[in-house]
Amino acid sequence: MDNERHDLPRCDAAVTRAFSVLGKRWNGMIMAVLGDGPASFVMLRRAVDGISDAVLSERLAGLAEVGLVIRDVDAGPPVSVRYHLSEAGEQLSPLLDQLGRWAATNLVEVR
Amino acid sequence: MDNERHDLPRCDAAVTRAFSVLGKRWNGMIMAVLGDGPASFVMLRRAVDGISDAVLSERLAGLAEVGLVIRDVDAGPPVSVRYHLSEAGEQLSPLLDQLGRWAATNLVEVR
Repeated sequence: MDNERHDLPRCDAAVTRAFSVLGKRWNGMIMAVLGDGPASFVMLRRAVDGISDAVLSERLAGLAEVGLVIRDVDAGPPVSVRYHLSEAGEQLSPLLDQLGRWAATNLVEVR
Repeated sequence: MDNERHDLPRCDAAVTRAFSVLGKRWNGMIMAVLGDGPASFVMLRRAVDGISDAVLSERLAGLAEVGLVIRDVDAGPPVSVRYHLSEAGEQLSPLLDQLGRWAATNLVEVR
């Protein structure tokens, strides 16, 4: 068995790009919650255990900036704000489900 | 169209578990590089652009602790240390490829 590699490996640019978003704490969880349907800020904060208001706010702005999350404002009254996934964000949902299945099988012992 | 949700959403426990590892900066990239084959510390540091020695060292220890990465020591001489994916880690590789393809299509404009 040839266990050697003689090339210089390099992290794939597309994987690097994926983790520029998903390698940021909470983003994967926020995307997964929105994958189940639109949610308000308060619903998201409750759904993502441990996140603070300030960090959730920053993450939602970042996810909107990269085009994965859309902020809807209903002028009301009463004014109501909800977040939902863009088309690009929706494309991620089945992969998050697969990551969950992988983790359920392979990461049982994480503390 | 019923755009309302009346339940209280909750981030899926398995997705939360997945991102306890992958939501930590660099981990996804390290796993992707090792998905292409075993690598030494120096190879990994070069492959993952921007990571420091201290952080790479901490991340490799964490990935080994959750059973995704295995550290091989060849007593030599010369002593040589290499890292490779465990079976559980290997199971992640096709999902990282899919995330890369998703990002290539959907995250083109990330700054």
